[in-house]
Amino acid sequence: MKELVERIKKDGNVLSDGVLKVDRFITHQVDPVLMAQMGQRFAEVFAAKKVTKVVTIESSGIAPAFSTAQILKVPMIYARKSKSLTMDEELLTSEVYSFTKQVTNTVSISHKFLNADDRVLIVDDFLANGQAAKGLIELCQQAGAEVVGIGIVIEKSFQGGRQLLDETGIPVVSLARISALKEGKIAFNEADA
Amino acid sequence: MKELVERIKKDGNVLSDGVLKVDRFITHQVDPVLMAQMGQRFAEVFAAKKVTKVVTIESSGIAPAFSTAQILKVPMIYARKSKSLTMDEELLTSEVYSFTKQVTNTVSISHKFLNADDRVLIVDDFLANGQAAKGLIELCQQAGAEVVGIGIVIEKSFQGGRQLLDETGIPVVSLARISALKEGKIAFNEADA
Repeated sequence: MKELVERIKKDGNVLSDGVLKVDRFITHQVDPVLMAQMGQRFAEVFAAKKVTKVVTIESSGIAPAFSTAQILKVPMIYARKSKSLTMDEELLTSEVYSFTKQVTNTVSISHKFLNADDRVLIVDDFLANGQAAKGLIELCQQAGAEVVGIGIVIEKSFQGGRQLLDETGIPVVSLARISALKEGKIAFNEADA
Repeated sequence: MKELVERIKKDGNVLSDGVLKVDRFITHQVDPVLMAQMGQRFAEVFAAKKVTKVVTIESSGIAPAFSTAQILKVPMIYARKSKSLTMDEELLTSEVYSFTKQVTNTVSISHKFLNADDRVLIVDDFLANGQAAKGLIELCQQAGAEVVGIGIVIEKSFQGGRQLLDETGIPVVSLARISALKEGKIAFNEADA
């Protein structure tokens, strides 16, 4: 997606080899105009999939997932990383290792929000080693729901996540694919650059 | 706001005295249509305030803050509760006690996103004891930014938060005001009911 790639070139920072910082428009400060464009794109790409729910994980997945759900006019569910006082019901849970925070979180969704009739679109801001998306797929499978697509804002194609997800057979669409983050430079997949 | 009050009556649950659960449409599963209506309302109410940034706190504040920022066409910033590997810069920080999670978090915003020219609208999902909003006001003040309004989705008027915020002189608008949560029943402020 041209607008996103241009924005990454302008406002993205390579913090260290392999780590891209996009806190100026996605992960801390959010540009609502760009976010709406990305939601529109995911909604178009997965239009034929009859999506009933958009699922993501807190916190940085919420804005792109919400934008997509707005266009698709379906509920958005964000998996929680910590148990709230108000989560008292049967939970779907899985273990997710966070690449940027270097901790393992138990993520959960209340079972009542997903069932065997659901056709889920997973949306997340980053695809690195694929652990977050894998955890969300597991949550959906526990409920018997079908994951019909995975929409990723930024894919770090040089890490193992894309391959891991491709092996599931679920269609994956990434709006920007980065082939390398080295010595302060961002290299995009040729088709995206 | 009529649509919100009706939805709370239909889908809200009193978990225990003083605790309201709205995970079916706000805090876990999000209804994008209702959320857009709430963002529209906040944008209208604070239209004259020349807002330059919408500020909230992860995670359940993100959807209503984002919806508001979409209409106002300004960036939305969400304060973080934990330090990310990619947060390497000068931070504005304050201490916030969470009523529902019963923990104290250090919340932070990168200083580069707020400055003395900013006119900030704070948006959050709940106002209970006011600690989250107070923490966000402090972050803005550290940057020299002016907080021109506070938009709250659900105010628990029987707790101390509203009074605490009114004492700051900043205009507070709550879309639903709840006067009591007792014995499984939700009582609304007369003007909202």
